[in-house]
Amino acid sequence: MSYIYKRTANYYETDMMGIVHHSNHIRYFEESRLAYMKSRGLDVLQMEKEGIIIPNVDAYAKYFVPVRFGETVDIEVSLTTFNGTKMEYTYTMRRENGEIAATGHTMHCFVKDTFRPISLKKSFPEYYEKLLGMLE
Amino acid sequence: MSYIYKRTANYYETDMMGIVHHSNHIRYFEESRLAYMKSRGLDVLQMEKEGIIIPNVDAYAKYFVPVRFGETVDIEVSLTTFNGTKMEYTYTMRRENGEIAATGHTMHCFVKDTFRPISLKKSFPEYYEKLLGMLE
Amino acid sequence: MSYIYKRTANYYETDMMGIVHHSNHIRYFEESRLAYMKSRGLDVLQMEKEGIIIPNVDAYAKYFVPVRFGETVDIEVSLTTFNGTKMEYTYTMRRENGEIAATGHTMHCFVKDTFRPISLKKSFPEYYEKLLGMLE
Amino acid sequence: MSYIYKRTANYYETDMMGIVHHSNHIRYFEESRLAYMKSRGLDVLQMEKEGIIIPNVDAYAKYFVPVRFGETVDIEVSLTTFNGTKMEYTYTMRRENGEIAATGHTMHCFVKDTFRPISLKKSFPEYYEKLLGMLE
Repeated sequence: MSYIYKRTANYYETDMMGIVHHSNHIRYFEESRLAYMKSRGLDVLQMEKEGIIIPNVDAYAKYFVPVRFGETVDIEVSLTTFNGTKMEYTYTMRRENGEIAATGHTMHCFVKDTFRPISLKKSFPEYYEKLLGMLE
Repeated sequence: MSYIYKRTANYYETDMMGIVHHSNHIRYFEESRLAYMKSRGLDVLQMEKEGIIIPNVDAYAKYFVPVRFGETVDIEVSLTTFNGTKMEYTYTMRRENGEIAATGHTMHCFVKDTFRPISLKKSFPEYYEKLLGMLE
Repeated sequence: MSYIYKRTANYYETDMMGIVHHSNHIRYFEESRLAYMKSRGLDVLQMEKEGIIIPNVDAYAKYFVPVRFGETVDIEVSLTTFNGTKMEYTYTMRRENGEIAATGHTMHCFVKDTFRPISLKKSFPEYYEKLLGMLE
Repeated sequence: MSYIYKRTANYYETDMMGIVHHSNHIRYFEESRLAYMKSRGLDVLQMEKEGIIIPNVDAYAKYFVPVRFGETVDIEVSLTTFNGTKMEYTYTMRRENGEIAATGHTMHCFVKDTFRPISLKKSFPEYYEKLLGMLE
C-alpha cells in the first residue's frame, strides 16, 4: 500500500539555478513519510512523547527533472521494509503531467532519548502491528 | 562593545532571484549573536543544559544590497539593551568593500523549558553580570 | 481586504528548543504573500518572466506563542501600503484556538533583473491597478 | 586526492530531536564540494556565468552518529568518478574525536541554462583537465 502526498514548491526552496534545491527533496520525503505514518496511526509527535525517537539511518534521492517554484508534485510513499528495528520508505515524486521528477528511499531506526535502540515489538507492540500492516 | 562575525554565503542559501534569500539574514544574525555570546562566556548550549531557553521576541532585517553566493560578509553584532529579563542585539552586515548589505535587530527573553520567564539576576547572577558587561 | 493562508509546521522546521525556528515565520509570511498575490492575478513566477523582480526591503516578525511540529496555523495577510514603487504586507499568524502566535510586516520594491527600480504604474499598469485593488 | 572542509553546526540546523536535521548533511556536502572545486580552479559562480550548470543527479547520506549544535565536523571530500559528462564526489564527515558521523556521495552532470547536456571535454577543455587532475 502507498500514500500520496501533495506538495507545492515554495519560492525560498529554489536556488540560483532557478529550481528547487536538491536538499529540499529530502525534506519533502520527510513530510510525505510523516503524513503517511500519521494517517496510519503513527503520530511521530505522540511517539516522541512516549520516548520513541526515529532518526534517519540513511537517505537517498535521484533527480530526473527539476521542480520549479509554484509547481505541485505528488509524492507516492510506501513502507518497503520493516523488521521491528529498522524500516525503509520508498518515494516517487511526480509532476502534474505524470512525469517522474525524483525517486528516493530512507532507512530509519527506533531509539530512546539517549539514542539507544528500542525493540518496537517488545516495548510498543501496537506500533509494531501498525507498521506491519503498512507493509501489506 | 561589538563583535565581528564573518560568513560566506552558501549556494543553497540563494533563491531564483540569484541572491541570498532574505530569511537567511535572520539566520546569519543568529550565528553572529551566538558566536558573540559564546566569546563572552555565554554558551547557549551550556545555558540550555542549565535550563535557560532564549527564544526570540522579535526579529527585524532591513536589506540594502543583495548578498550573492560565495560572497563573504562581516556581521557586526552588539548588545544594545539588557534589563535582566530581555535583551536586544543590533546587527550591521557589510560586504567586503565596506558597503552595508543589511541591518537588523532581535529581542530575546529568558525562559525555562516550560516557556515560563526566568529572572536572570536572581537565578543566574553570573550570566547576568556577563551580559551587563557586554553593554559597555 | 485580506487573505487567509493555512500552513502546517514541518518537522525539519523545528529546532532543538522543540519549536518552529523563528526564521521560518519569515518564510511562512512569504508563502502567504505569494499565495495572496497569485489569488489576485499577481503571479510572481509570471511577473519574473516579464522582468519584474520583487525583493524584500525589510522584514519584521514578533513572536507571541511558539508554533510546534504538526500544528496548523492561519496566516492572515493584507496589503497595507502601496504607492507604485513600494508595497507593504502585514501578517497575523493564529493558532487553531484563535490565539495569535506571531505578527509581522514586510516591505517590497519592484526592480529589473539588474536590480534597478521599475515604475509599475508606467511599465506595468495592469499590475499597478491590481495592487491598488488589493488595498481596498 | 581529497580536501578537508571544516563546518560548525548552527542552532537553526538542529531539529526537535536535538540534533542536526539529516537534510543539512546534504547541504554540508555541497559546501565541501564547492569549496574543494574552487580550491582547484573550478569556481561554480564563474562556471555558471560561462553557461555551465551542474545539477545533482543523485545524493546519498548515511548517518552514523548525530551532529549537535556547536560541534565542528571535518568533511573529507574527493572526486571519485569523472568521465566528461558526469562526476561523483564521496564524503566522510568526522567529529573532532575522529569518529565518523556520516558518509555519502553525490553524482552531478553538466548542462546549459536550458538543462541540455554539455560535453565538458569539447566545450570547456580547461575545466575538463582540472577535473581529471582531481581524480589523481
